[in-house]
Amino acid sequence: MLSFACDYNEGAHPKILEKLMKTNFEQLAGYGDDHYCTSAKAKIKEACGCPEADVHFLVGGTQTNQIVIATMLAPYEGVVAAKTGHVATHEAGAIEHSGHKVLEIPEYDGKIKACDLRSYVETFYGDGNHEHMVFPGMVYISHPTEYGTLYSRQELEDIAEVCHEFKMSLYLDGARLGYGLASRQTDVSLQDIARICDVFYIGGTKVGAFCGEAVVFTKNNTPNHFLTQIKQHGALLAKGRLLGIQFDTLFTDDLYLKLGRNAIEKAETLKSLIKEKGYRFHLESPTNQQFIIIENGRMEELAEDVMFSFWEKYDDNHTIIRLATSWATTDEDLDKLAEVL
Amino acid sequence: MLSFACDYNEGAHPKILEKLMKTNFEQLAGYGDDHYCTSAKAKIKEACGCPEADVHFLVGGTQTNQIVIATMLAPYEGVVAAKTGHVATHEAGAIEHSGHKVLEIPEYDGKIKACDLRSYVETFYGDGNHEHMVFPGMVYISHPTEYGTLYSRQELEDIAEVCHEFKMSLYLDGARLGYGLASRQTDVSLQDIARICDVFYIGGTKVGAFCGEAVVFTKNNTPNHFLTQIKQHGALLAKGRLLGIQFDTLFTDDLYLKLGRNAIEKAETLKSLIKEKGYRFHLESPTNQQFIIIENGRMEELAEDVMFSFWEKYDDNHTIIRLATSWATTDEDLDKLAEVL
Amino acid sequence: MLSFACDYNEGAHPKILEKLMKTNFEQLAGYGDDHYCTSAKAKIKEACGCPEADVHFLVGGTQTNQIVIATMLAPYEGVVAAKTGHVATHEAGAIEHSGHKVLEIPEYDGKIKACDLRSYVETFYGDGNHEHMVFPGMVYISHPTEYGTLYSRQELEDIAEVCHEFKMSLYLDGARLGYGLASRQTDVSLQDIARICDVFYIGGTKVGAFCGEAVVFTKNNTPNHFLTQIKQHGALLAKGRLLGIQFDTLFTDDLYLKLGRNAIEKAETLKSLIKEKGYRFHLESPTNQQFIIIENGRMEELAEDVMFSFWEKYDDNHTIIRLATSWATTDEDLDKLAEVL
Amino acid sequence: MLSFACDYNEGAHPKILEKLMKTNFEQLAGYGDDHYCTSAKAKIKEACGCPEADVHFLVGGTQTNQIVIATMLAPYEGVVAAKTGHVATHEAGAIEHSGHKVLEIPEYDGKIKACDLRSYVETFYGDGNHEHMVFPGMVYISHPTEYGTLYSRQELEDIAEVCHEFKMSLYLDGARLGYGLASRQTDVSLQDIARICDVFYIGGTKVGAFCGEAVVFTKNNTPNHFLTQIKQHGALLAKGRLLGIQFDTLFTDDLYLKLGRNAIEKAETLKSLIKEKGYRFHLESPTNQQFIIIENGRMEELAEDVMFSFWEKYDDNHTIIRLATSWATTDEDLDKLAEVL
Repeated sequence: MLSFACDYNEGAHPKILEKLMKTNFEQLAGYGDDHYCTSAKAKIKEACGCPEADVHFLVGGTQTNQIVIATMLAPYEGVVAAKTGHVATHEAGAIEHSGHKVLEIPEYDGKIKACDLRSYVETFYGDGNHEHMVFPGMVYISHPTEYGTLYSRQELEDIAEVCHEFKMSLYLDGARLGYGLASRQTDVSLQDIARICDVFYIGGTKVGAFCGEAVVFTKNNTPNHFLTQIKQHGALLAKGRLLGIQFDTLFTDDLYLKLGRNAIEKAETLKSLIKEKGYRFHLESPTNQQFIIIENGRMEELAEDVMFSFWEKYDDNHTIIRLATSWATTDEDLDKLAEVL
Repeated sequence: MLSFACDYNEGAHPKILEKLMKTNFEQLAGYGDDHYCTSAKAKIKEACGCPEADVHFLVGGTQTNQIVIATMLAPYEGVVAAKTGHVATHEAGAIEHSGHKVLEIPEYDGKIKACDLRSYVETFYGDGNHEHMVFPGMVYISHPTEYGTLYSRQELEDIAEVCHEFKMSLYLDGARLGYGLASRQTDVSLQDIARICDVFYIGGTKVGAFCGEAVVFTKNNTPNHFLTQIKQHGALLAKGRLLGIQFDTLFTDDLYLKLGRNAIEKAETLKSLIKEKGYRFHLESPTNQQFIIIENGRMEELAEDVMFSFWEKYDDNHTIIRLATSWATTDEDLDKLAEVL
Repeated sequence: MLSFACDYNEGAHPKILEKLMKTNFEQLAGYGDDHYCTSAKAKIKEACGCPEADVHFLVGGTQTNQIVIATMLAPYEGVVAAKTGHVATHEAGAIEHSGHKVLEIPEYDGKIKACDLRSYVETFYGDGNHEHMVFPGMVYISHPTEYGTLYSRQELEDIAEVCHEFKMSLYLDGARLGYGLASRQTDVSLQDIARICDVFYIGGTKVGAFCGEAVVFTKNNTPNHFLTQIKQHGALLAKGRLLGIQFDTLFTDDLYLKLGRNAIEKAETLKSLIKEKGYRFHLESPTNQQFIIIENGRMEELAEDVMFSFWEKYDDNHTIIRLATSWATTDEDLDKLAEVL
Repeated sequence: MLSFACDYNEGAHPKILEKLMKTNFEQLAGYGDDHYCTSAKAKIKEACGCPEADVHFLVGGTQTNQIVIATMLAPYEGVVAAKTGHVATHEAGAIEHSGHKVLEIPEYDGKIKACDLRSYVETFYGDGNHEHMVFPGMVYISHPTEYGTLYSRQELEDIAEVCHEFKMSLYLDGARLGYGLASRQTDVSLQDIARICDVFYIGGTKVGAFCGEAVVFTKNNTPNHFLTQIKQHGALLAKGRLLGIQFDTLFTDDLYLKLGRNAIEKAETLKSLIKEKGYRFHLESPTNQQFIIIENGRMEELAEDVMFSFWEKYDDNHTIIRLATSWATTDEDLDKLAEVL
């Protein structure tokens, strides 16, 4: 059955498989201490325009969020996030499990606003009782957000300004970063992100890898003994090559951006299709996730031919569903979808 | 200076001091294994009308919340609370520090509603992704709330019904329980609480003890090896007698309720005084905490003569402040306050 | 350079790569909810002769130890292990990080004895103060151990008897299980392990997979909401297929055992070679890890031609080193080593 | 029945009760922000000869150990302690519960040796795999130890030297510090401890207070937002006055040392008595805890008349028991004991 359910339905880009095959019997040191990891890190630093960056590879998104947040925060600090932020909702309490509160602020199609952030922090420090409360120590944003939306460069800079004024780190979750960078409606480059954020990750799992996220610390701010802390979280991969080879491939010949572009192109076609067929959008998303308000009976019919994500109830007769394109979406997929719709 | 800042400004009720003195040189076993603890527990069980209850003494309120929540929840569960609940706001992240998320629902003058709770839980289980989210395992309410308000018996029963339908424990934080029980506007008795809730605590610190909270498990549901778990949280008092003797005294000759009544009587006078002097109430509180909206200039004048709690900004020109009576408030205190106001 | 440093120097067995390639564009559900995971689980249950088993896939060994121990123990319980057990030494405190103490007992070439275990537990419960101590809730053994040694079936049964008498789970870390099962000096089968242990894992990372460990709960004792708990530890792989396909391949046509056998055959040759060349063994290991006492000067010469693991100082002039064969070791590797030695 | 079971069998020194009474109706700020806490801190700093010290009051010993260790260590660090150290044995895993491993080294009548410590740390850093292990970040010693023994000043300095060479904090658990300082066989003063250690605590609970331990940070090394972190551990006392008044009393007119001296004098008499009656000592203790090897039948007889602590089995026919004197032990107690023995 045709699936637009998410962007991690397929395996990995063929070039990754090819490289894994080619390098399979090289004997390499474990735990990321191999030349593919080294090469991948160098390529990422170059792509970021940030020679002083420090890059580490982890396996998955929730793991990355948990480790970055837990190792960068002091025990008495929490992380500020949108109410709809992934860390606030769909990580099974992984952040709290590591001892930190997620401090929620309002969201607008998945994004936070610098003014709300400022107001939150000023109120916190203005409260005579703030020593009895959780200190805001970091701000978490996702880009694209869980709703496919994107920050503008100015918005990122405004948020960063508040962060730095109040000594909070700015952390950007780039699980779908490739799709954000390739959007036609963005003025934010990878270099911008490296310059503005204190730490972010470049998502592999959802952009063509079997698994893997590349964490980038941009300001000489890697937590002490980070490898030991990764191990302590059960997240240190013995065969680090699996991550190194994947990212080395993704950052060779701009593959990462090309994969992003494919998803975006397919999403543009998808959007036209949806409009054409008279469906209503829940919000305007410039990336690979599209949210549609659909009549419940129609949704059930659709479910017979195509897989999509149930998002939330809209009203008694309508539901919001998500259709996602990806690095692997083909024109044939869209043709079939067109028929079905 | 006159203080209405809170209900823990003084030491302990003189009868407690007297009893501490009288028993001082008795040689008693440590860790709560003494006859004063035994006697106090028996008296509390009787007052609760709950012979099968299991009573444990802890030192403070945040400690009690942290231990009860952490020992009763499974690791994948969180605790549902009002946005203004003490565990959600003023405990420095103690709940998250022990690994559990506080799941916030709307509040109405500090109280939650059974219908909101039901809606929250139904949405949770209705979400196809709920295994990626924090399970609601317990409901936390405070009575009186942080705003001095009280649940009616029917409200408690409605909340308990939802709890039990969805296999959540109902936990009542009774830091100021004495003031709630003594209110003239309550139909909730200690026996009702013991019957309706799965676990609750009877606050000592704010109702006449130097320190101490009595946790009551009402449904044969004490966590396994609870003493060991208390110790593991660093909360096992070597000289358990200090807690046993205080609660034994508080539950002799209805002292606990009498202390509650004093605070309520004084609060009634305080309310008349406030009305008389033309101040505006932020909300109607039937217990010992009274919240007043005061013009900022007037607040500064007042602060020269009397201590109160800053609560929050009301608007640019007004502030909400809290005045609290207690077991120790005297008529003279109120006379002085009347002059000042 | 030739490497006998460890058993995870290469990528994955070619059949795994082949299968990943072949299935690459199938659109599959995430989080292990795909038919390759289902198939792999069925094959593992069959190989274990344990239809009631419950199988889950995780990414790495420390992660698996951390999650199994943390989710099966009560908060007041610790895990008993040999002083040299992996959880006691080389996991960066991952077990303590999740809140549990590792309770160390004596080891004999990496193994524990049922009599020591009994004595430990009896002393614990005999101590009047045991409620102030950490309860032994689980016993951790590795098979093969960190020293390549193996338990006999009788030894496992004796340990299990003590475990069950004192209500402790028996957990077997099978990071190198394939090499243990294939040893010529073992009477322990996979079915024995499934019958005797409460939980164990079948190591993939060190036996031919890129990554992956298969946890087997054998007694209807999977922790509640285990998927949620995996997610909470940051260990839930989005593309669960990566693990399912690997284990499905390893458990097709006995590949897992065949890989084990290759390492054992090569280890037998290695042992002959070592004896022949007059080196001394630190201990007698029936599996793929061989420990040699080597004169320091000789060690430095050797290091120029072949990679091995430094284990520990033996005396001022000698060092213990480890040479490991694996699923990927070839006759050519051994020929080259023979020349070097 | 006569009790020599421990040093916390009685309430508090009468002067403490007197002061609690006298100050009972003063209206004081909560959470330690009152003038008795301020005064007590000043007196302690003076007694320590350490004006730059930072003093905080906590309620109990395990709580203090847990908080000091957890707030001073980085997540990847553990605390080195004697195998018999209180944190390693009788704290129900409170240290591990807060995420940190206790790294055990050999003990000699409860004490550790600088040479063992050095050897442990050197081996750690010499191990090529140390990034996969728990970093030693702090050294925990108790003075007096759990066996009543004392370090000499030179021994403390030797341990401190190793600590500082390897960037570990030296933490001294002074649960019974008063009895150590008052011993006739010590050359260690409170000033020495303040000079040599990075952090230590002055035990109140076991030396005449109802509860309370005074933590002293001596090197401008108080953990950030320590009050918030105390609160987060559930350990912030609302009526901080209870601790302030007790320590203010203990550090007025040398009361703390006087209480220590009483216990020591009584212990000297006790030791003579024991020798006289022909009992054998398990070890030579210069403080208030005395360990005796007693024939099992004799022990049972003794248990009819006097309470003591079972320590451990000595052999099949003998047991080690502990008799402790305290600030409250009287000549009459010893006379009665003489009769019984």
